Amino acid sequence: MVIPVDDVADPRLADYVRLRDVELRKRLEGERGLFVAEGEKVIRRAVGVGYPVRSVLTTAKWLDHLADVIEGHTVYVVPDEVMEGVTGFRVHRGALAAMERRELPSVPALLAGQGSPASRSAGPPARILVLEDLVDHGNVGAIFRSAAALGVGAVVLSPRCADPLYRRSVKVSMGAVFAVPYARMGDWHGGLGEVRDAGFRLLALTPDQSAVPLDDAPLDGRVALMLGSEGDGLTSHWLSEADLSVCIPMSPVATALGVDSLNVVAAAAVACHSLSRPAAGVRTAR
Amino acid sequence: MVIPVDDVADPRLADYVRLRDVELRKRLEGERGLFVAEGEKVIRRAVGVGYPVRSVLTTAKWLDHLADVIEGHTVYVVPDEVMEGVTGFRVHRGALAAMERRELPSVPALLAGQGSPASRSAGPPARILVLEDLVDHGNVGAIFRSAAALGVGAVVLSPRCADPLYRRSVKVSMGAVFAVPYARMGDWHGGLGEVRDAGFRLLALTPDQSAVPLDDAPLDGRVALMLGSEGDGLTSHWLSEADLSVCIPMSPVATALGVDSLNVVAAAAVACHSLSRPAAGVRTAR
Repeated sequence: MVIPVDDVADPRLADYVRLRDVELRKRLEGERGLFVAEGEKVIRRAVGVGYPVRSVLTTAKWLDHLADVIEGHTVYVVPDEVMEGVTGFRVHRGALAAMERRELPSVPALLAGQGSPASRSAGPPARILVLEDLVDHGNVGAIFRSAAALGVGAVVLSPRCADPLYRRSVKVSMGAVFAVPYARMGDWHGGLGEVRDAGFRLLALTPDQSAVPLDDAPLDGRVALMLGSEGDGLTSHWLSEADLSVCIPMSPVATALGVDSLNVVAAAAVACHSLSRPAAGVRTAR
Repeated sequence: MVIPVDDVADPRLADYVRLRDVELRKRLEGERGLFVAEGEKVIRRAVGVGYPVRSVLTTAKWLDHLADVIEGHTVYVVPDEVMEGVTGFRVHRGALAAMERRELPSVPALLAGQGSPASRSAGPPARILVLEDLVDHGNVGAIFRSAAALGVGAVVLSPRCADPLYRRSVKVSMGAVFAVPYARMGDWHGGLGEVRDAGFRLLALTPDQSAVPLDDAPLDGRVALMLGSEGDGLTSHWLSEADLSVCIPMSPVATALGVDSLNVVAAAAVACHSLSRPAAGVRTAR
């Protein structure tokens, strides 16, 4: 049903207000159990994996383009200035959709393969990421994109990690947050126990160059790679909980120049790529 | 020399005006031959590799902290509101420095190892990146950071690539743009010829999964990895100029879900990591 709206204050647009106000959105999306997908491709992916659509917000010129995606849904069509007035920014990708969140699985359920519709056919994950306190939505989104592309089966988040369904995470991930099942620990201090209990070897990624090079780490069985926050890396508590510390070897030139670490998105990509190699420390032709 | 200034319009602050206005800054920095480094750590690295300081702009509370870096230089000390008024944003890292650019080497000079002070001891580069039309300053900065950390010896830019010395590139790179020597081609169409003439094998990174997996590509001799733009990847002309097309293998699950590529920063990190392995397609313990 296509409904023209031309008043910025129309209460039917309340799901879309002030999308750049992180604190407001956290509260509002939590209370209402919603998230916002931006752009045709991302909306299509969210619908494709079964998230229910609350409504779509777009402008007249995008309607035809979206016809098949929006069929059967409530679609608010607004002038450009109302779009900008409600959301607080110029929406370049033509359409927004307010979608219903689903309840996240528990960590044990996730690791048993009961993560999400997208994972049903994939079975229990063999390689996972465990993210500790990554607070930047863009970084979390980018890491999900790498995880999806390189075959990581699930992601476990510490309690303080940024929300993968926040608009910016979703956008940067290109919708990969819908493809990779994830869960959030209830408890930071003891949370790794549930991962270990599921039979995962815990590898802690650290810039410390005395750790085992990641490409030499054993990958037989189930492997969980732990990644720490943008600034400080993993906490000493989590480092001490790991079965093995691993590192990405830095070039000696870089170390001499003080450019001695990767940003967390780059480190995660390298790590996901290393996890995707066949088990055992020997490279074989693919 | 520490000089208090309290007028936003003071002409001595002209190097720092409207730092977020990309078009203005491109023109101004080109005409004046300057760039702006932000934050103590980055300023320190720029000074460390020998870029001349034109001036420093900071506030009173940061002076002590910067004492050793700014000694001997012209330092404008301004109130917070003048800092924000001149630059157009709230400078979180306490200090900015306007630095003199240096003339870039030609591509042949770069590849002969005459790139920059930082590379003098490193000799001619064996592994390089060639970037085609990457227009996002943050992406260029992040790629330089990965290149530095993972031992890539030099970067060649196509004529349209974003400026590595633009403030945001420098910041995202954490100063790695000072550590990795680079040059800019004069000519997009024929530019790869100079790289090939220097004895480099040209590997084109493509999302096309029928290409050779990057980890199986031959790395003996000099190797140039070509990376294309954020949206479209390498142009067909550059693809046709390559000696070999290579890909980062994507997981089958990802392909099925349509999340079938890495973002360019993640792809570059994986590629730099793969380039850093020993020559030949066989992994050896390090």
